Amino acid sequence: MKRTEISALGKVAFVERLTQPFTTNSNTQIRQGIGDDGAVIDRGGWLEVVTQATMLEGIDFDLTYTPLEHLGYKLVTAAVSNICAMGARAEYLTVSIGLSARFSVEDATALYEGIRRATEHYRLDLVGGNTSASLTGLLLSATAIGTASDEELILRSGARDKELLCVTGNLGAAYLGLQLLEREKRVLQGNGVSRPEINREHAYILQRQLKPEARGDVLNQLREAGIRPTAMIDVTRGLASATLHLCQRSGVGARIYLNRIPIASETFRMAEEMHIDPVVAALNGGDDFELLFTAPLDKHRELLTMAGVDVIGHIVPASAGAALETPDGGEIRLQAPDWTARVTEAETAE
Amino acid sequence: MKRTEISALGKVAFVERLTQPFTTNSNTQIRQGIGDDGAVIDRGGWLEVVTQATMLEGIDFDLTYTPLEHLGYKLVTAAVSNICAMGARAEYLTVSIGLSARFSVEDATALYEGIRRATEHYRLDLVGGNTSASLTGLLLSATAIGTASDEELILRSGARDKELLCVTGNLGAAYLGLQLLEREKRVLQGNGVSRPEINREHAYILQRQLKPEARGDVLNQLREAGIRPTAMIDVTRGLASATLHLCQRSGVGARIYLNRIPIASETFRMAEEMHIDPVVAALNGGDDFELLFTAPLDKHRELLTMAGVDVIGHIVPASAGAALETPDGGEIRLQAPDWTARVTEAETAE
Repeated sequence: MKRTEISALGKVAFVERLTQPFTTNSNTQIRQGIGDDGAVIDRGGWLEVVTQATMLEGIDFDLTYTPLEHLGYKLVTAAVSNICAMGARAEYLTVSIGLSARFSVEDATALYEGIRRATEHYRLDLVGGNTSASLTGLLLSATAIGTASDEELILRSGARDKELLCVTGNLGAAYLGLQLLEREKRVLQGNGVSRPEINREHAYILQRQLKPEARGDVLNQLREAGIRPTAMIDVTRGLASATLHLCQRSGVGARIYLNRIPIASETFRMAEEMHIDPVVAALNGGDDFELLFTAPLDKHRELLTMAGVDVIGHIVPASAGAALETPDGGEIRLQAPDWTARVTEAETAE
Repeated sequence: MKRTEISALGKVAFVERLTQPFTTNSNTQIRQGIGDDGAVIDRGGWLEVVTQATMLEGIDFDLTYTPLEHLGYKLVTAAVSNICAMGARAEYLTVSIGLSARFSVEDATALYEGIRRATEHYRLDLVGGNTSASLTGLLLSATAIGTASDEELILRSGARDKELLCVTGNLGAAYLGLQLLEREKRVLQGNGVSRPEINREHAYILQRQLKPEARGDVLNQLREAGIRPTAMIDVTRGLASATLHLCQRSGVGARIYLNRIPIASETFRMAEEMHIDPVVAALNGGDDFELLFTAPLDKHRELLTMAGVDVIGHIVPASAGAALETPDGGEIRLQAPDWTARVTEAETAE
């Protein structure tokens, strides 16, 4: 039988191959199916948004340096962030976990304490899920359900030529936090110290990696300013991946000004220390959980002065592709490594 | 730090420990939270039912003898069965998978073909989910969303003293199918034949293990007969576990007549051949996906004559506990091994 490697196909083509044969069986209320941060069901008068976030030990987290409480919090953040990226409010959560015997009741309790704190913070309710045995470490899967009105809903597919491309917060910090944790792990692996000691000045990038927050606050801020984003996606696998997904779904291209990409000073400092290009961290690093969105050109002034939001570029026709503009006027085509490449990495580790 | 083994606590106490600290944050529409087959949200005029089903390689399935297409179908069956056990109709599905590099595009396509066939069979729609890399084999997590009216909803907690205890279909067949597959695997492991050859007369028990069906059909049948079950649960970890859960949630006890437990002739034959007690297979075997329910005593006649349903016992006060009655009038207290014991088994295999 023919064997095609998943990495040879790439994520977008792979997901298309899997889901293309599906047809609608009974429901005409599906406003958005596969292909966005969440699914949208028209409930007549309001929209229900459903999303699933999965985190696997060894792929998405390393328990050498990830406190279980933070991990629980981050799982909820990942699910809520998807709901935010649709312009919706998360209301309900189910969490399923698989645990191997390495984990004690105290470990599971710490994990659920993080989940509980996150549900309190985001004001949503844990309503279900399940716990089961696992052969190989810790597996987490959360489903979040949210609501939005027709006016609030923001899809990935709504971006149009000439619109502004904006991003919340700053990018790359979570990736540098991860690199720092990995470095400390390597240093300490010889010493038998179980958890790396971390310098206080690294607190920001570590917090961005270990306990990120979903940006529902920015949705409110935009709403209050009378700005309705035309398309939105959350930045979980780097700015390049998010931009390419948004462009692909909207049928447009984009230009991002390299020197407008928001990067925190702590990220710059750590990048310098570790000889990492901070722009590459912003473009390809993961776990930022910021929101990338487009907005009408006439909102330029409001967006320029809005705290916590940066206008980083604009939308162009699809034919012009998605690219970075460097300060000297050069163009670098955006490329994003996707997880299908990581499947091959995983094999090496298996 | 103190370390308590999960297996020392047992599943019910473990889940209670994890979820007890959670309080409601914002929503007063939660009709049923953790503790049933699914969560129930009151949407004003109708009820939304949400459930999550997870299947992990090495714990819930063995790909030596499980065709990927059947596995996809079974994942959907597991999620839909939970929805059925609430008296609801499944409408929407999200599926998340984790894949290691061992899996090809063709493998994933076969898995999704099974998911697609199941969505067609159960008439529900795949609306989302995600695909990601896994270090260690195949992981599947499905969320199903269904609807029910107030009159249709059936919780685990509604059983009352003197009511009838009933079960759909027959039990233990899936467990014997699993034992047969495991036996063939052992036989063939020396031969280098990749997939066991199976005798045609074993088709029934194999189909029960590899491609089980959710019993939404029985809900319709009961509705047409004017019978409203008072409590219901699906039988996924054996009759003993299902009965104990139903009793615990309802605050009652139960008596099951040992010789009334429905067991198919194919199950009896294979049990005899393999020196397995078929009643033990029915009580403690998994994957039957039948429905266990209680009904008012005055429906006894209708239920006795209904095809595909058996009255196997009755509800008693909680103080009398849950027990089997043997034909000679003896009583055997019901006990169910739960998955927390399997965590320890998993460790051994790790």
